[in-house]
Amino acid sequence: MRQVSIIGIGQVPVDEHWDLSLRDLGVQAVRAAMQDAGAEMPDALYVGTMASGELSGQEHAAALIADHAGLRGVEAIRMEAACASGAAALRAGYLAVASGLLEVVVICGVEKMTDMVAEDVTTALASAADAEYEVAQGVSFVALNALLMRRYMHEHDVPRSAFAGFVINSHRNAMGNPNAMFHMQITEEAFNKSRMIADPVGLLDSAPICDGAAAVVLAPTARAREFTAKPVHIRASAVATDTVAIHDRADPLFLRAGFLSCQKAYAQARVTPGDIDLFELHDAFTIMSALSLEAAGFAPRGQGVRLAQEGEITLQGRIPICTMGGLKARGHPVGATGIYQVVELAQQLRGEAGPNQIDCRLGMAQNIGGSGATIITHILESGV
Amino acid sequence: MRQVSIIGIGQVPVDEHWDLSLRDLGVQAVRAAMQDAGAEMPDALYVGTMASGELSGQEHAAALIADHAGLRGVEAIRMEAACASGAAALRAGYLAVASGLLEVVVICGVEKMTDMVAEDVTTALASAADAEYEVAQGVSFVALNALLMRRYMHEHDVPRSAFAGFVINSHRNAMGNPNAMFHMQITEEAFNKSRMIADPVGLLDSAPICDGAAAVVLAPTARAREFTAKPVHIRASAVATDTVAIHDRADPLFLRAGFLSCQKAYAQARVTPGDIDLFELHDAFTIMSALSLEAAGFAPRGQGVRLAQEGEITLQGRIPICTMGGLKARGHPVGATGIYQVVELAQQLRGEAGPNQIDCRLGMAQNIGGSGATIITHILESGV
Repeated sequence: MRQVSIIGIGQVPVDEHWDLSLRDLGVQAVRAAMQDAGAEMPDALYVGTMASGELSGQEHAAALIADHAGLRGVEAIRMEAACASGAAALRAGYLAVASGLLEVVVICGVEKMTDMVAEDVTTALASAADAEYEVAQGVSFVALNALLMRRYMHEHDVPRSAFAGFVINSHRNAMGNPNAMFHMQITEEAFNKSRMIADPVGLLDSAPICDGAAAVVLAPTARAREFTAKPVHIRASAVATDTVAIHDRADPLFLRAGFLSCQKAYAQARVTPGDIDLFELHDAFTIMSALSLEAAGFAPRGQGVRLAQEGEITLQGRIPICTMGGLKARGHPVGATGIYQVVELAQQLRGEAGPNQIDCRLGMAQNIGGSGATIITHILESGV
Repeated sequence: MRQVSIIGIGQVPVDEHWDLSLRDLGVQAVRAAMQDAGAEMPDALYVGTMASGELSGQEHAAALIADHAGLRGVEAIRMEAACASGAAALRAGYLAVASGLLEVVVICGVEKMTDMVAEDVTTALASAADAEYEVAQGVSFVALNALLMRRYMHEHDVPRSAFAGFVINSHRNAMGNPNAMFHMQITEEAFNKSRMIADPVGLLDSAPICDGAAAVVLAPTARAREFTAKPVHIRASAVATDTVAIHDRADPLFLRAGFLSCQKAYAQARVTPGDIDLFELHDAFTIMSALSLEAAGFAPRGQGVRLAQEGEITLQGRIPICTMGGLKARGHPVGATGIYQVVELAQQLRGEAGPNQIDCRLGMAQNIGGSGATIITHILESGV
């Protein structure tokens, strides 16, 4: 296999984009990334989107975006793994370039969520869970996370307020990210008073419904400097899965797919958690931040929340997370999120993170589909 | 890159499977292909399905099928390119094994269409077209093919009855395929009298709504004989796209993506159309058969129908097509079709096509998404 690098990045600010459709969002991100890379016609465009059929009546989004981005004729395929669709597309592009058969591949994550009424968005998001054995019982995706959070609080004797640190950190970091959806600080008091959605998951535990698109351009590492002085090398790419239904797991509070994909990624990159300078994790709900930190090896079981309580996850902490606002405050346009994470990680590794810049060489991005059923981990290294 | 071979095949008979869900169908095909290959735990499962979210309320189908097929933990991703989703998954698996990073990869195409009322299936299928510029005008997928067929009849002065040969051939070949949905011969008289759906597309021009799943197992060619005495080698894999909306094409009767993907495939395999012994093409509608034969170089423009009229496409003809019944008579469970085509091609190349066996060494399978917006071509060679 060949080594693979990111030679260009692009993103649309996450927002409620009432004047932009799915294709518009995708096209803007693809063009921005190609311009950043200085790339002409790529060999392929892979698109990650979770529910464009349900949300926009549009399957076949990869060919559509390819054409409207000026890439008519190009190989174009969509990848889907629920909220991990963005990273799934990156995974496929990584393998394609690694194979030696394709040279330059553009990866775009995109989701247009705000054209539907909220009930229909809730239905579409629930399709990430088990339709026949979870959703048929009337459970929503928020409710599944509420079950996990309640169980965590019980098992580890943790109060709800212990999760505030995750939200405070994400919102504080979003203040320095012009592409973030929310630019407002959250206090612990505001978190504790926030409206309940599905007890114990409150409004401020949850990432917002929004629109967005982000893109990266891949090329063989050996050719990366033809395009950019700031390549970012993909040191590891790993996918693992678990049961889709939470009730099928022997230990629902252990993200087994997170553990497996991190172990594969650490082995491929030949690193340990201690080598990782920052971790763009999947904080769709606060409980997921805690579970991810534990499965990745940054905290023992039940201690993930303590990293937030003790300030270890801030820009100055031991393992900074959600450095540009995370899903909670940058926003979570579901199929796009995995690429936003990688774009932000590349910004950090290229030294372009503005007021949020941390000193880093090696970073990890992790995208989660469903309640931990698909977990995709990428480790990136600065080539500056 | 490494060479890649098919070491196992499996399929569920195409039918209206009232007692099987999306996951059941996928699991049966995956288990059958793995048993055929004698493979244990693969490195990945890639699933092609077009509209599981709209049709079954189930995105995230790859992780779901992986778990229920006994592959818990495995890398699993879904690929989608409308009706070309099956071949899109094969393409991704081919690149993954070619890269050297993955060894054994299972590819499954699956679609469950019959749990919805027909109007909702029509809506889901229309999501392969341009939602904002075609579907918003009220056009269905059948209607788009009717526009193409009418134009073809006008441009090339061809009567509707000239298309009968495609349907007669597919239904005749399905008689020898126990996995086909329809086992009944069609006469030219029956074709001419068949009920109009969207003039000039009649019921017998159209592939049926149905359920199905098929799977193949891939491995490096160098290791193929560890698993099977009858490997089938992938000599070429190529994807090309065109505008999703037909009205954006300068020449709507030319499948530019078909031409481009065939040219790429011929170049990779270093063959010409004359070297191809059989062609599993995408006869979702009779007009698509004619256009595909022309774009692939088997007939000049406007002469594709003549191959059917003159018997050139039969098992004894110059270029046999749809040798196990094609989409028309084997059935067209949309996201599964691309893998059924490859399974049937492998049956021919392994000498396991029963009464339909033709003498062959090199075959081509072509899967089409939308009205020719995504066209994926694979060339396979017998390793027997």
